[in-house]
Amino acid sequence: MIAEFTSGARDGSARAGSVRLARGEVATPGFMPVATRGTVRALPTHVLAGLRTANDAGFDLLLSNTYHLMLRPGAEAVAELGGLHAFTGWDGPMLTDSGGYQVFSLEPRVTDEGAEFASTYDGSRHLLTPELAVQVQELLGADVQMVLDVCPPLPSSREVLERAVDTTEAWARRALRARTRLGDQSLFGIVQGGVDIGLRAQAAERTVALGFDGSAIGGLSVGESRAEMLPAIEAAVAVLPEDRPRYLMGVGDPVSIVEAVARGIDLFYCVLPTRLARHGTLLTDGGRLNITRAEFARDPGPIQAGCTCPSCTHYERGLLRHLAAVDEPAAATICTIHNLWWMLQLIERIRTAIGEGRLTALRAEVAAVWDPSPPG
Amino acid sequence: MIAEFTSGARDGSARAGSVRLARGEVATPGFMPVATRGTVRALPTHVLAGLRTANDAGFDLLLSNTYHLMLRPGAEAVAELGGLHAFTGWDGPMLTDSGGYQVFSLEPRVTDEGAEFASTYDGSRHLLTPELAVQVQELLGADVQMVLDVCPPLPSSREVLERAVDTTEAWARRALRARTRLGDQSLFGIVQGGVDIGLRAQAAERTVALGFDGSAIGGLSVGESRAEMLPAIEAAVAVLPEDRPRYLMGVGDPVSIVEAVARGIDLFYCVLPTRLARHGTLLTDGGRLNITRAEFARDPGPIQAGCTCPSCTHYERGLLRHLAAVDEPAAATICTIHNLWWMLQLIERIRTAIGEGRLTALRAEVAAVWDPSPPG
Repeated sequence: MIAEFTSGARDGSARAGSVRLARGEVATPGFMPVATRGTVRALPTHVLAGLRTANDAGFDLLLSNTYHLMLRPGAEAVAELGGLHAFTGWDGPMLTDSGGYQVFSLEPRVTDEGAEFASTYDGSRHLLTPELAVQVQELLGADVQMVLDVCPPLPSSREVLERAVDTTEAWARRALRARTRLGDQSLFGIVQGGVDIGLRAQAAERTVALGFDGSAIGGLSVGESRAEMLPAIEAAVAVLPEDRPRYLMGVGDPVSIVEAVARGIDLFYCVLPTRLARHGTLLTDGGRLNITRAEFARDPGPIQAGCTCPSCTHYERGLLRHLAAVDEPAAATICTIHNLWWMLQLIERIRTAIGEGRLTALRAEVAAVWDPSPPG
Repeated sequence: MIAEFTSGARDGSARAGSVRLARGEVATPGFMPVATRGTVRALPTHVLAGLRTANDAGFDLLLSNTYHLMLRPGAEAVAELGGLHAFTGWDGPMLTDSGGYQVFSLEPRVTDEGAEFASTYDGSRHLLTPELAVQVQELLGADVQMVLDVCPPLPSSREVLERAVDTTEAWARRALRARTRLGDQSLFGIVQGGVDIGLRAQAAERTVALGFDGSAIGGLSVGESRAEMLPAIEAAVAVLPEDRPRYLMGVGDPVSIVEAVARGIDLFYCVLPTRLARHGTLLTDGGRLNITRAEFARDPGPIQAGCTCPSCTHYERGLLRHLAAVDEPAAATICTIHNLWWMLQLIERIRTAIGEGRLTALRAEVAAVWDPSPPG
């Protein structure tokens, strides 16, 4: 199913709009929380679904990890339980990754056939192929599935990057041949190419030529600087079709998000806001705040003054510092709610700025807080 | 502040009604969740506050543990943060225990002066006296505070039980003298006396004579059988005033709750529903259900068919079994929500049964599920 992108307001290369998926519309720019094993960690899905701003904006798209689900409880189990939507209790649009990113982090044996890895659960050996990634994701049944790609570390030699692009293309062809679930599932291709602008453009062209329902840019935010990353995004976006969503994988820091939006990216996911929350690091308009610090022990203020999220509405910094200190599990939930809400607010500010033609000003505001030395 | 009890429907010795506390009315019979360290474990307080049945019944009263709060973050810190209501984010009525129950579980050195114990946090020595329990609870500022009492194990010799009653009375007098916060805080006395009916009645008379704002029955559910416990409750209730609430401490299994209600008890608390939930044991109309069992791995049904709680509305048994198996913290939250909701439903069934004069039938229904050999 083609993921049709309808464009609304524009501001330079940035665009606001929406993507139509099997289970509904996704407003863009958009940020996906990560439901790693079927739920965002420490956050029941119905509580996540209830996070909606005064403008009724919420998270339209939820990402879940194929790697984890294929090993526990297994894709067949999820299918038998009614598919990923019934399984997770999330009835809106969902996206699954291919499992490749986690598998490549395990230093697998990569052949033309696929990537062989040892399960982090029990050490058992598995071979993830492009066909298996499709088959597993069809069993899971998210609205969007991703092709299995090769994501090399950065920096890598030109040869490694070229081979990654070649293998990614070969695997993409096999994924397209393997897919059977066309009616209610979109398949996105992934553009590799490291931070080599020419290779990124070439990889984008080869991906687009295969005719995917949407496109993603992968292999970034893996060690390179933002100054290296952004031109690679520009090179890819220049080639990607206007009428399909553009999804930047694994990039979630505020500056990178606004800068990528300014270059035409529509969709983001990142585990950072939720992972930071579980360690007591909170996102605020003034930057990061580590709630475990002793200075907050007698602070009756909310995490962020003026924030209207459920956590800031109900809880003091002093309570959260205490709950974190005594290792109370509700602390992770409360902090996760705030950090995701803050991401929602960032996305709302971006959409509003695009609508009002002042994204440039917002980029400066975000950079001033989150990156004292702004990107080139 | 007198905790005024207004009686509504009656059915035998059972009574439905409400208790007026500083921050509002508490419908009875009522069950208090336990916010051990400032929140119910694994459950953010605003999510707890949002648990309301179709009849808009929710938890009216929340219990928090003085023992934990006086050690971490300390009563002065809670006071500085605005008191327990501001600290926890719960704006309804609250009750604190005296800390005695936890202290007595640590095998303290008990003298006439108080109970000396070692902190479970850092081993430091503390002396809890009746005066300190009052002082700490005044700093915490719950709507109801409890006197420090002596809770002996069962069985204990007649001599030990009599001494516990004597010391509890002496400490109660000291607590009444020590209290200063009369305007917005009620102080409840505690009736001890083990399962000796004569001693219970005597202890109740001595407690009532001191003129507390409400009464509690303590020292039960500590090892004795239900057949021993219920006559002790009857003996105490017979003496307690009609116009004050009667609170049975630490008793939370379904059969004991309905049987105690039938004997005139108004208020309950127990950690059992939330503790069981964290270990994957769920309360259902058919009895306990252990969600970690392999048989639920492919079960698409809710925890309990027909249950309208947020957990049953959104999640399958198969998901919960999976989340518990991979040690996902959200599983504890989801299970805690269900178990507390089930307690709410039990309380609603009890209130309705009292209103309709059929508590006897409900006692039989509850006993048939939860206790195949009903109490004498």
